[in-house]
Amino acid sequence: MSIVKLTAPLPRTLVAKAVADALAEDLGLIGDVTTNATIPADATATALIKTRATGAVSGLALAEAAFRALDPATEFEIAHPDASTVAPGATIAKITGNARAILSAERVALNFMGRMSGIATLTARYVTAVAGTKAAIVDTRKTTPLLRAFEKYAVRCGGGHNHRIGLFDAVLIKDNHIVAAGGIDNAITAARAHAGHMVKIEVEVDTLTQLEAVLAHQVDAVLLDNMAPETLKEAVAMVAGRALTEASGGVNLDTVRAIAETGVDLISVGALTHSAPVLDLGLDFLA
Amino acid sequence: MSIVKLTAPLPRTLVAKAVADALAEDLGLIGDVTTNATIPADATATALIKTRATGAVSGLALAEAAFRALDPATEFEIAHPDASTVAPGATIAKITGNARAILSAERVALNFMGRMSGIATLTARYVTAVAGTKAAIVDTRKTTPLLRAFEKYAVRCGGGHNHRIGLFDAVLIKDNHIVAAGGIDNAITAARAHAGHMVKIEVEVDTLTQLEAVLAHQVDAVLLDNMAPETLKEAVAMVAGRALTEASGGVNLDTVRAIAETGVDLISVGALTHSAPVLDLGLDFLA
Amino acid sequence: MSIVKLTAPLPRTLVAKAVADALAEDLGLIGDVTTNATIPADATATALIKTRATGAVSGLALAEAAFRALDPATEFEIAHPDASTVAPGATIAKITGNARAILSAERVALNFMGRMSGIATLTARYVTAVAGTKAAIVDTRKTTPLLRAFEKYAVRCGGGHNHRIGLFDAVLIKDNHIVAAGGIDNAITAARAHAGHMVKIEVEVDTLTQLEAVLAHQVDAVLLDNMAPETLKEAVAMVAGRALTEASGGVNLDTVRAIAETGVDLISVGALTHSAPVLDLGLDFLA
Amino acid sequence: MSIVKLTAPLPRTLVAKAVADALAEDLGLIGDVTTNATIPADATATALIKTRATGAVSGLALAEAAFRALDPATEFEIAHPDASTVAPGATIAKITGNARAILSAERVALNFMGRMSGIATLTARYVTAVAGTKAAIVDTRKTTPLLRAFEKYAVRCGGGHNHRIGLFDAVLIKDNHIVAAGGIDNAITAARAHAGHMVKIEVEVDTLTQLEAVLAHQVDAVLLDNMAPETLKEAVAMVAGRALTEASGGVNLDTVRAIAETGVDLISVGALTHSAPVLDLGLDFLA
Amino acid sequence: MSIVKLTAPLPRTLVAKAVADALAEDLGLIGDVTTNATIPADATATALIKTRATGAVSGLALAEAAFRALDPATEFEIAHPDASTVAPGATIAKITGNARAILSAERVALNFMGRMSGIATLTARYVTAVAGTKAAIVDTRKTTPLLRAFEKYAVRCGGGHNHRIGLFDAVLIKDNHIVAAGGIDNAITAARAHAGHMVKIEVEVDTLTQLEAVLAHQVDAVLLDNMAPETLKEAVAMVAGRALTEASGGVNLDTVRAIAETGVDLISVGALTHSAPVLDLGLDFLA
Amino acid sequence: MSIVKLTAPLPRTLVAKAVADALAEDLGLIGDVTTNATIPADATATALIKTRATGAVSGLALAEAAFRALDPATEFEIAHPDASTVAPGATIAKITGNARAILSAERVALNFMGRMSGIATLTARYVTAVAGTKAAIVDTRKTTPLLRAFEKYAVRCGGGHNHRIGLFDAVLIKDNHIVAAGGIDNAITAARAHAGHMVKIEVEVDTLTQLEAVLAHQVDAVLLDNMAPETLKEAVAMVAGRALTEASGGVNLDTVRAIAETGVDLISVGALTHSAPVLDLGLDFLA
Repeated sequence: MSIVKLTAPLPRTLVAKAVADALAEDLGLIGDVTTNATIPADATATALIKTRATGAVSGLALAEAAFRALDPATEFEIAHPDASTVAPGATIAKITGNARAILSAERVALNFMGRMSGIATLTARYVTAVAGTKAAIVDTRKTTPLLRAFEKYAVRCGGGHNHRIGLFDAVLIKDNHIVAAGGIDNAITAARAHAGHMVKIEVEVDTLTQLEAVLAHQVDAVLLDNMAPETLKEAVAMVAGRALTEASGGVNLDTVRAIAETGVDLISVGALTHSAPVLDLGLDFLA
Repeated sequence: MSIVKLTAPLPRTLVAKAVADALAEDLGLIGDVTTNATIPADATATALIKTRATGAVSGLALAEAAFRALDPATEFEIAHPDASTVAPGATIAKITGNARAILSAERVALNFMGRMSGIATLTARYVTAVAGTKAAIVDTRKTTPLLRAFEKYAVRCGGGHNHRIGLFDAVLIKDNHIVAAGGIDNAITAARAHAGHMVKIEVEVDTLTQLEAVLAHQVDAVLLDNMAPETLKEAVAMVAGRALTEASGGVNLDTVRAIAETGVDLISVGALTHSAPVLDLGLDFLA
Repeated sequence: MSIVKLTAPLPRTLVAKAVADALAEDLGLIGDVTTNATIPADATATALIKTRATGAVSGLALAEAAFRALDPATEFEIAHPDASTVAPGATIAKITGNARAILSAERVALNFMGRMSGIATLTARYVTAVAGTKAAIVDTRKTTPLLRAFEKYAVRCGGGHNHRIGLFDAVLIKDNHIVAAGGIDNAITAARAHAGHMVKIEVEVDTLTQLEAVLAHQVDAVLLDNMAPETLKEAVAMVAGRALTEASGGVNLDTVRAIAETGVDLISVGALTHSAPVLDLGLDFLA
Repeated sequence: MSIVKLTAPLPRTLVAKAVADALAEDLGLIGDVTTNATIPADATATALIKTRATGAVSGLALAEAAFRALDPATEFEIAHPDASTVAPGATIAKITGNARAILSAERVALNFMGRMSGIATLTARYVTAVAGTKAAIVDTRKTTPLLRAFEKYAVRCGGGHNHRIGLFDAVLIKDNHIVAAGGIDNAITAARAHAGHMVKIEVEVDTLTQLEAVLAHQVDAVLLDNMAPETLKEAVAMVAGRALTEASGGVNLDTVRAIAETGVDLISVGALTHSAPVLDLGLDFLA
Repeated sequence: MSIVKLTAPLPRTLVAKAVADALAEDLGLIGDVTTNATIPADATATALIKTRATGAVSGLALAEAAFRALDPATEFEIAHPDASTVAPGATIAKITGNARAILSAERVALNFMGRMSGIATLTARYVTAVAGTKAAIVDTRKTTPLLRAFEKYAVRCGGGHNHRIGLFDAVLIKDNHIVAAGGIDNAITAARAHAGHMVKIEVEVDTLTQLEAVLAHQVDAVLLDNMAPETLKEAVAMVAGRALTEASGGVNLDTVRAIAETGVDLISVGALTHSAPVLDLGLDFLA
Repeated sequence: MSIVKLTAPLPRTLVAKAVADALAEDLGLIGDVTTNATIPADATATALIKTRATGAVSGLALAEAAFRALDPATEFEIAHPDASTVAPGATIAKITGNARAILSAERVALNFMGRMSGIATLTARYVTAVAGTKAAIVDTRKTTPLLRAFEKYAVRCGGGHNHRIGLFDAVLIKDNHIVAAGGIDNAITAARAHAGHMVKIEVEVDTLTQLEAVLAHQVDAVLLDNMAPETLKEAVAMVAGRALTEASGGVNLDTVRAIAETGVDLISVGALTHSAPVLDLGLDFLA
């Protein structure tokens, strides 16, 4: 894994609210009873966010905001910014501030960063697996409810690309839409007539026959669902650059390279956001 | 896996808000452009939530609320309630209502249920693995920010038990607290003096020497961190019923049985909530 | 003006919150002191929403929600649905329910509908003015803060189309971006590299020379800013179908037809949302 | 138009939330994709808010808050404060800060200021039109839902006065109230009995006969609806200072002077807030 | 105490949110652990809200909403509506519904009703104490933060009247305003010039000399602060009906009658909302 | 009363929101019309929060936040921190800042502090009354809805202790639970089986016979409801240290000492939060 040039940062406006809600969830009406009983109110401390595994970093803005929410004077020095690759034992950031604040915000900070770095790390594995091909690794809408902005950002930190944000910003015509509309032609015509002119249209197909029907229309992308590599290769040839080609279904780290080598433009992987294990991060206090 | 008797349902008050926020995230300002273009406004449909893998169900209230938020007249019949075990191909619920509503709420419903059922399923695996021992499987605070209520509920659906809810409802004294308080004695005394009388106190120890120091005090539980099974067994003997014993660290499906057989009361597993893969659920439309 | 086939309804999830907030703004902590003092608590009434001017209807869902928020049993019969054209004196809807509820919600209902119908009406005037040309009338991001979803919906009710929803769902490269990126080539290349594959790219140009530079790249649309009709015609010819052509600047009801006749695909009109006068609606009580 | 002495500033507590919500609406989950792709993260810029038309300024606090929300270090220098009159080409404020922040917040800032300055400008036109008479120009409750505080403030910036804030802070008895209460006497008596002692009472009348009936009671104001100037003059004479007199209905820039010269105390104009065109403002970057 | 004719009900729009927030406060992320463990999910029950003391009822809408939030099918029969007087042992309302819902919502319902009924009861005591005089008992802004709407409503339930709602709906000039404005004349003139025409003006005075200065102006009310009854009587004579007279300071149940007999129009009592003891209510389950 | 060592501060995360909501309630859409009309925008002032009665201080963080919300540059010097005892005339804090901000935030600041200090003061009276016994004074769930965190904090400021926070963090088995579960044995067994292992269990009993049945089980606490002192003494002897003993019912400042001398561990007093009169605080401006 190498460092990704990250051009689309997390919208600043989303961070404060998510952190405030997460802290409220953990602190409740009483706060951190253990820390308040055992740590003097004015004690200060320095702690390091370290990784215990290899991975890609994501979520530092949320961690920083969590500590600052409890102690606005917290110093937060970043050693490895978001989208960096880190090895076990690496220090990602150094935090200096009120000791109670650090201990009370620790879990919220790590819960955000661990999950987001887990997604970035899994994404980076897929990106690495297809290195040298033209295929981009893209996410899906299979994200954790309420955390989509953060998870799509984490995918970008791992070198992946974002598919549509939600149901509102792109058309993706699937089986049920086609049936209800009375066929592929009707569905595409209806979508073209009603979607805004800045909205792209993608159509999902399961077979080359369906693909042929779709290609009678001008669409922006075709989603080739659950096709074997050889079929994908044939599909790419049929499309011949008239639309972006996206493979989905049956994608895992064992199969992704073969899929990429079929020449598809995009490979979408739901697991990036719905099944990435956490990156094992910890907070170590300096003596 | 067998059916769990579920006595602590999800607080009703949390469901509506989470579903509304999740739908807002997916529908944005414009809604489902694909569905609105291709499906008649008054079309109705029937669809089934089916599982493609073996697992434990969790999150039906959220799915139901998602469909009802878009069509209040939706009928939602549950075939396998939360905490049920289901086999691949099983129908979990049947939804009848406005076709646009079903298609537009599908992903939100499945994102909640898939994640929660994934947690329930992984929990159930751990519970099964320790069957016949006295050990209970418990969760941690390593939950997805903003979703703790749902994830702790999912653990209960899988037959697990909940550890403390947050920083506020129980004392858990760790290394840093002990150092800052000037030793185990001070830390426990301070906690006892300042925590409410209905708040239990647990102390984390890494060694039997530390455990001995803790046992000089009356505490409700001891967290035996990263101990080998033989050490755990010794620890359980030392405690001799004076406190609950909880094992944590190095727990996975390969090691959990041996840990349980040491006689500990509780085994806490962060992975239940931070690294459970999604349960593969799908929505199938009836022709 | 004729009736528009409206395929993208207002997302249901947005209506309740907007109406609740608007009622809170008008009712405050005490409620409608005049109505509560003078109207018996259990009086019922029937009232008609009527238009005093010609226009296009928009916002009925918000009006209905406002009355129902104060009396859930309110009957709300729609005579002219959203996107209908109405003449002075026409009854748009009939409301039967608690008299206090109708009087207390009246202003909120009319404030929403008057503004939205005003936008729909102005949009319909532009649409009518370009009838027979291929040009679509589209909105901009010059909307009332907090009401974008409702105003973009109102544009659709008037027969217009929506441009991008916000800064997030499409790229629109303007002067400042080009300067900062070091030229048109860099800007387009950077946008293509970093935007998601489902995101369209439009570039704003002021001159035909700039247009030529843009056309060296594959872009989805060009925004031809402040060009005279003859220049627009030349631009359309230069583009030759390789991108959508959008005219903007200096558009009003006197100029829009000439602009449309240049053959542009789209004409964007900020005034649709930032300067539409209200449609004059009133609530008449039946004796 | 001259500079107004502005004594009732916008409550500080309302600004931050409105700006945060408006930015969320425009930035969504991903942010400004164009700016993030083309502008370096650490670029700085200076830009001027300039007016392209003559008008009265309103809304600077919201603009400042918008830029600061994305870059807290933004410098915001005000050349013409709220309630100033500006001529085409005038610089209203100068902004120095992070270039991405300025570009991404530009539209939100201008959408607030353009709308509010449009209201202030239209108000100032009415105020100027009645100069030398004793009539004050007042607003109504026909405001944009969710923006009443900002629009009523804009009216004050234009030299107008605020009528009641909502349904809760003053009694305004209209036809329907009179009918339901069983006559003017009953209605006024009921209002006086039930409204708080700090709540003023105004009664709407359409004819001099109705006015006579109202004047049998002590009321704070009478709303003379849709009366011709000569009738208004007669009404003012009948009232003879016993109540404030307010004219409404049929008020526009052509008629307002004649209405003012009848001697009424107040002229209420719904158009101030429901139909004011935006003031044309732009953001110019300094090279 | 007698039954009050209650004409200004609690705005419906405020109830649902307050109840949802209060339930969230009490149920947290897990819900009612005791009830969920011991009561079958489908058990039903009937319970009575009874009073153990004499008092005036207030807050039934909040109690009903609390039970319905947990079981929408709850039947809620009201025996003594808000503003009724009840004697010890009286049943105020009867609740039939899901047993878990009743037990889990009980405390929230009683906390609202007990506090509000306590305020209504104390208000009714003051109202009774001044019976036969012309003095009205009014509240102040000394309310519980976040609950002003409910507490001002409770005052109305007890037969009291509401003073201004907040800082925004009436002018109340006090010492500090007078000093800062440079004297009483300046302060009143400034207030008259800047407040809206529907806003009443009251001035606080401590001495008859100050009162004389105030009476040189036309004001709506004078607040006679901390004056002895004989001074109040003199003040009332001086005012001679030119303004409402309000007594405040040193008011308690022992002194209020003498104050009322001075002829003042209003007596404001902060204790109504800041120091009313709860009315002792309980929930009794029917066997 | 003596100074309490306060170890569990108010969670920082709760203060800002409560203060913002309370200010919104008091300032509405227009703000403080009196202050804005009479006080120059740039005037500064210094004021003292003083007490007019003896009491215990609580709520300074909320007062400080209220003044800072309106003028971020406010200086707030604390003379007597939360949990201090103050005598009439004592200065609790000194505020220097914008004069309008101080006047406009005054009431919100005092409403929070007066109520919280009232609770702290009443608590301190109970604590003093039992001095020398082992009994701790604890609060209940009879708190003002929406303000529980602040009221439980105020109890701690007065030297009291917190009982459970809500329904979620401890089991408290009462009559209705026992009846529904089919007896004390079933109820306790069910609670033990279903509550988390960190959740304590308390059982309420009215008689010594019931107590005996409870003591057949291991419970953490017993609530001895409405027992006479001699019965309490007997109960304490029966329990013999096997559980915490809590007395409740019939507790007031006259009876509490006798109750404490029975040897119970805890005395819970609902009046601490439901009926504490406000502490009389005022804001005095320095000339």
